[in-house]
Amino acid sequence: MTSVHPEATTMTDKPITDEEIFAAHEGGKLGVSVPRAIADPRSLAIAYTPGVAKVSRAIAENADLAAKYTWSHRLVAVVSDGTAVLGLGDIGASASLPVMEGKAALFKTFGGLDSIPLVLDTTDVDEIVETLVRLRPSFGAVNLEDVAAPRCFELEQRLIEALDCPVMHDDQHGTAIVVLAALRGACTVLSRDIANLRVVISGAGAAGVACAKILLAAGVADVTMLDSRGIIHTGRENLNPIKTELAAQTNKAGLRGGLPEALAGADVFLGLSASTVPEEVVATMADDAIVFALSNPDPEIHPDVAGKYAAIVATGRSDFPNQINNVLAFPGIFRGALDVGARQITDNMKLAAAEAIAAVATDELAADHIVPSALDPRVAPEVAEAVARAAKADGVA
Amino acid sequence: MTSVHPEATTMTDKPITDEEIFAAHEGGKLGVSVPRAIADPRSLAIAYTPGVAKVSRAIAENADLAAKYTWSHRLVAVVSDGTAVLGLGDIGASASLPVMEGKAALFKTFGGLDSIPLVLDTTDVDEIVETLVRLRPSFGAVNLEDVAAPRCFELEQRLIEALDCPVMHDDQHGTAIVVLAALRGACTVLSRDIANLRVVISGAGAAGVACAKILLAAGVADVTMLDSRGIIHTGRENLNPIKTELAAQTNKAGLRGGLPEALAGADVFLGLSASTVPEEVVATMADDAIVFALSNPDPEIHPDVAGKYAAIVATGRSDFPNQINNVLAFPGIFRGALDVGARQITDNMKLAAAEAIAAVATDELAADHIVPSALDPRVAPEVAEAVARAAKADGVA
Repeated sequence: MTSVHPEATTMTDKPITDEEIFAAHEGGKLGVSVPRAIADPRSLAIAYTPGVAKVSRAIAENADLAAKYTWSHRLVAVVSDGTAVLGLGDIGASASLPVMEGKAALFKTFGGLDSIPLVLDTTDVDEIVETLVRLRPSFGAVNLEDVAAPRCFELEQRLIEALDCPVMHDDQHGTAIVVLAALRGACTVLSRDIANLRVVISGAGAAGVACAKILLAAGVADVTMLDSRGIIHTGRENLNPIKTELAAQTNKAGLRGGLPEALAGADVFLGLSASTVPEEVVATMADDAIVFALSNPDPEIHPDVAGKYAAIVATGRSDFPNQINNVLAFPGIFRGALDVGARQITDNMKLAAAEAIAAVATDELAADHIVPSALDPRVAPEVAEAVARAAKADGVA
Repeated sequence: MTSVHPEATTMTDKPITDEEIFAAHEGGKLGVSVPRAIADPRSLAIAYTPGVAKVSRAIAENADLAAKYTWSHRLVAVVSDGTAVLGLGDIGASASLPVMEGKAALFKTFGGLDSIPLVLDTTDVDEIVETLVRLRPSFGAVNLEDVAAPRCFELEQRLIEALDCPVMHDDQHGTAIVVLAALRGACTVLSRDIANLRVVISGAGAAGVACAKILLAAGVADVTMLDSRGIIHTGRENLNPIKTELAAQTNKAGLRGGLPEALAGADVFLGLSASTVPEEVVATMADDAIVFALSNPDPEIHPDVAGKYAAIVATGRSDFPNQINNVLAFPGIFRGALDVGARQITDNMKLAAAEAIAAVATDELAADHIVPSALDPRVAPEVAEAVARAAKADGVA
């Protein structure tokens, strides 16, 4: 309970100013590098004409050689239409670009993967799929980012079918994987079995839906979801297809109503909705409760308040303990998938990633350290290895 | 006449082997870099959540800020459909990628510009335009590359109209600009006026058409073109629109026939056709003839043979004197255009680029050094400055 959190202490040392943020974004956050310098006539003749013709001819004769002699098969396209950017909503492709540049920078920093943002001035699913199909020879994988629900579900599925390469909507699965890893960590600290938890998820957008699915796949027996209209149950009308599917798989107790009804006696609150949870409702949760208040930048309930009732509290912020940050997942997942040439990212690969993240922190686990730090360099290689193994086991590599 | 050519001597030192070429292409020739390291919680909070939200919100409120706070406005997309790759022809998008990576590497090396290849699995003009329009917020300029004629003419024009940013088909204009620069150098060496030259262009593809246009724009009064069927003249039937236009502007003498008829008494031979020119035909050219045999890797006539009759001989190869290499033009042109936020690349910007290239070599001019070396680091900055000035003068920046 007394482990050190360098993030929290460092972050509070000196507040980050707007000036500092904008200065760090001037000219953007990415660059292109040329690993082998073109500094003399010989290197020019090798990298460009006439030498390059040999390589192009070889690929024309054997398409598989593109994987070896171009950057494309290790290149992650970070794709967005800018419709659900952070907590800012539909701000458009151009304004989403700093986020996508940040994501690409993290792929490089933690996964050692080259990555480029491709932001799209269209929100039409057919057009986005068509565009990426045309560009298919340019990249090796697609990290879909900040696309609004429910469109994101169809878009991801369509891209998986059309592109035959690793495709993952990170807002869904990256979040879900790290939530599962953190929940495993919390269970270890509290000596509880994940299967016996009663979990309440507030928010049925991209992240909420994916969290529900991965928790069910991981063996959590009792999950209840809420959207803006309250608890999702089979008796509700006008549910969209994904919520209809979830209504059938969740809410075993047949609860109806809102947050108070859902949280009374619950073990886990998972907030993914940018709403708030009253203190008195958290107070009704079971003993040894777990609160993941993941809305950014404002958690659904302040961690200090939640801590009065819950045994473990996590947020999405780096200035509190237990940060649930997607960066723990996506660099290693794509790295592992690309390392073995996986054609897709399966559920087992996602589950393996969560296990690997949880395993890194085992020796250091504490109520205020249920997941590794977002900057822990041990995580991505472990995740990559586990994901690569799972890809082979699933026969997609 | 005794100037040193480091390229030629270096190149002949040790032959480049296939092993060396393929080894230098392993993993591709590009990487993504992260200029400001994300190494601690503070830099993560600035470059990613929560800090990045400030930047995205600012761009959402003022779209012009994308130019300052993202990499897009300095990013050149090197776009190809792989239909006319080097001398290899229609080898497809994937096989064209090593060439596009090389081009992107040269943009970085000589122009200091970030650049990414976007290769397209479609050859349909409408689809290529549509794809780049959708991706418009992702980049700042388009270098169109290795697209077959005559489709390349329509595609370039359509992109210029649709994208409102610098767009240039380098096989056309990059070649034309360096040819004009080299011809100016040759005229200086021979004390001749470019306006009085009788120029014969063999090849009416992308490069041939652009060379004809820039030479006419630069004041060359007499240009005659040949395609695979012979001299282009107004009496020929079934000319495509671009050749019809050129027929009206060229061939003042009304010549008919083939290369022998065209070259008899001509001052300049410009070969861009991957065909050959018999020695006895070159022998019929005027005194002090100029031969640019630019087909790669095999010039239309061996430079040593042409040199028996011509005062000046140039090729596209780095292992002979007077290499006509597009790398002298494109990095500086795009750099200059992007430096001043030009909305397009005008004819005057192209002419200014040619002047700037020619001006760099003035003091060192000789019959075997009519243009600067492809690796001369003085060229791109001079070209960029001249192009930026011309953009302002033309009111497109």
